[in-house]
Amino acid sequence: MAQDLEGLEVVPGGVTAPRGFQAAGVHAGVKRKRLDLALIYSELEATAAGTFTRNRVKAAPLLLTMEHVARGRARAIVVNSGNANACNGPRGMVDARRMAEETAAALGIEPELVLVGSTGVIGQPLPIEKVIAGIRRAAKLLDRDGGTAAAEGIMTTDTRPKQIAVRFRLGGQAVTIGAIAKGSGMIHPNMATMMAFFTTDAAIECEQLREALRRAVNRTFNMITVDGDTSTNDMVLILANGAAHNRRIERGGDDFERFAAALEYAATHLAKEIVRDGEGATKLVEVRVRGARTEDDARKAAKAIANSNLVKTAIYGEDANWGRIFCAAGYSGAEFDPERVDIWIGELAVAKDGMALPFDEGKAKEILHEPEVTLTVDLRAGPHAATVWTCDLTYEYVKINASYRT
Amino acid sequence: MAQDLEGLEVVPGGVTAPRGFQAAGVHAGVKRKRLDLALIYSELEATAAGTFTRNRVKAAPLLLTMEHVARGRARAIVVNSGNANACNGPRGMVDARRMAEETAAALGIEPELVLVGSTGVIGQPLPIEKVIAGIRRAAKLLDRDGGTAAAEGIMTTDTRPKQIAVRFRLGGQAVTIGAIAKGSGMIHPNMATMMAFFTTDAAIECEQLREALRRAVNRTFNMITVDGDTSTNDMVLILANGAAHNRRIERGGDDFERFAAALEYAATHLAKEIVRDGEGATKLVEVRVRGARTEDDARKAAKAIANSNLVKTAIYGEDANWGRIFCAAGYSGAEFDPERVDIWIGELAVAKDGMALPFDEGKAKEILHEPEVTLTVDLRAGPHAATVWTCDLTYEYVKINASYRT
Repeated sequence: MAQDLEGLEVVPGGVTAPRGFQAAGVHAGVKRKRLDLALIYSELEATAAGTFTRNRVKAAPLLLTMEHVARGRARAIVVNSGNANACNGPRGMVDARRMAEETAAALGIEPELVLVGSTGVIGQPLPIEKVIAGIRRAAKLLDRDGGTAAAEGIMTTDTRPKQIAVRFRLGGQAVTIGAIAKGSGMIHPNMATMMAFFTTDAAIECEQLREALRRAVNRTFNMITVDGDTSTNDMVLILANGAAHNRRIERGGDDFERFAAALEYAATHLAKEIVRDGEGATKLVEVRVRGARTEDDARKAAKAIANSNLVKTAIYGEDANWGRIFCAAGYSGAEFDPERVDIWIGELAVAKDGMALPFDEGKAKEILHEPEVTLTVDLRAGPHAATVWTCDLTYEYVKINASYRT
Repeated sequence: MAQDLEGLEVVPGGVTAPRGFQAAGVHAGVKRKRLDLALIYSELEATAAGTFTRNRVKAAPLLLTMEHVARGRARAIVVNSGNANACNGPRGMVDARRMAEETAAALGIEPELVLVGSTGVIGQPLPIEKVIAGIRRAAKLLDRDGGTAAAEGIMTTDTRPKQIAVRFRLGGQAVTIGAIAKGSGMIHPNMATMMAFFTTDAAIECEQLREALRRAVNRTFNMITVDGDTSTNDMVLILANGAAHNRRIERGGDDFERFAAALEYAATHLAKEIVRDGEGATKLVEVRVRGARTEDDARKAAKAIANSNLVKTAIYGEDANWGRIFCAAGYSGAEFDPERVDIWIGELAVAKDGMALPFDEGKAKEILHEPEVTLTVDLRAGPHAATVWTCDLTYEYVKINASYRT
């Protein structure tokens, strides 16, 4: 990937950094005080793609958006926070449609070009009149500098807004990708209560846009975990409006690879930001598994380690408890010979051939005291590798989740 | 099962309640102060069966015991706590064999008739000389009232010893099953750091003993979870010495069903005791899923709910957050129509057809304030059901596991 990223530049502006995008965030009144509604608008009709939670229980706005995005075209994304509009029966779908219709009316576009998201409490009807009033206000506030307000409008238990934009050249043209994301608890592979919205001024075929998004999501948002729960409302969407006037990105070729690499770069940044902001988290933990027999084995082992409450509490306690790491790999379902496994905490080798190495506990403590910790496991069973990001499990996590009704 | 349990009586004595068994617990010095070695001895050669962790990483004593128990005969079980003798390379197997040999020598029996277990820290060599001295002392202290001492000898983070004995009649004869168990953290289906040792004076064919044990374990120890981690050292063993002189239990028939039901009764008691003693637990949570399309779906959904940190923290916070229960069922992999699902907290219906019901939050709080809480989910997709036991996730869990090196 590295060479595809040559000349990539991080720029300000989030979703409004690419040309031809406007955004706004308002307080509609779903939440008591904070911004709770975001609107993203493309001045030109855009190519659109999305990926969605694999939870069997899908919120109404997801069902509607899956239907709309399947057409491959969109111009707006409207999202409320504070209420997930999930498990509300037929009324949920009626409300989701109203959000699309009201957004379309305010923008003078077709409802089918509006993608809808909701995040927050499950099983409580959306206060739809407040949301509609919010949509109307947001449409009036749309601005080419509205990226940050939109990033704030989608937050739930997040402690800070999450956004990024990157610029790179395709042929002679500068192309920009911008993004906002939300999510802190309940983050898990296959899209947890996690949302990310990408905008780009690249001109790109719909099929290529889908492929680039799928690849980026699989390597980033699907490889992070806070508590292993996947939610009813997760989605990642991208709008590509072609305002950069690059030669349209088609199947294969360098332009596609550069675009996909830049998208993955932005997605990686946001995925790590989400984990870093994990509920009650004090540390970002990168779990690297290599030497796996298959890619699936590498993922399984890395995810089992990253999801282990015992590993996560040990990291919180800054305890070099490699036995828990080894044990989690053991029950992951990955195939390997336990007597060949090597384990490192940071750069410190702690186990070799499945056995303890004598190591400096003071040094281990020092490594584990850092805000970012890397755990590496070499299964020595094959050529495959995977990386998963997670956070530690803390008192604060229990406190937040014992009192917050999702 | 109920009618098979008619006349079943709970009696004192644990593993020494059945005729012809002796036991002892001693302090060998693996742990600083508490008892750390247990010995169970059958005066007669016994039929033996066992089930073991499915973790790919298996501790040396398990590998040895799997070999010995495959012969179907045994006379002694020796177990140390404080050190798991796992991930110690070839030395681990040498030490496990020495434990069997020294036990055999002290009792005047063959080493192949000794089953060996270890539980505690992973990746540190066993202080074998201390263990051997402990074995010799334990052999001298063997006693027909030694059940409780043995129950104490296998404890790690357990806050109390766990034992039970039940008596019932087969034909004209009184038959007794006794048991001890340990386990508090890291309890998960497929045998976590969980050990249980059963003794019985029943006369029973080896194949029938294996079948009864497999059935009981699948419905009890494999259906409890504290933190979802499965360990390297879990085992359940049973010795049946025939001292009750009942007509030998053979394939099929009422005697087998009565024996299996009594065994399951004892196993259920211990499994629930283990969950109740879960690290930092304040509540026992029974998750009942019914109306599943298949038994596997029922188990998957019940386990996903029981393993959800979000559900477990909500129970700790006494919050009737049925959305988290529904959501966990949704990502479990079980097939169902979200718009048919009904959910109860205790006897209180909180969701119907996948939608919120209006319910009395005060009443819900009251139910969740009890030390035992039942969650019921009806998927309305078929006739299958499963029950899983778990506990809440608390500050105390994080504290214990951030500081204890397993």
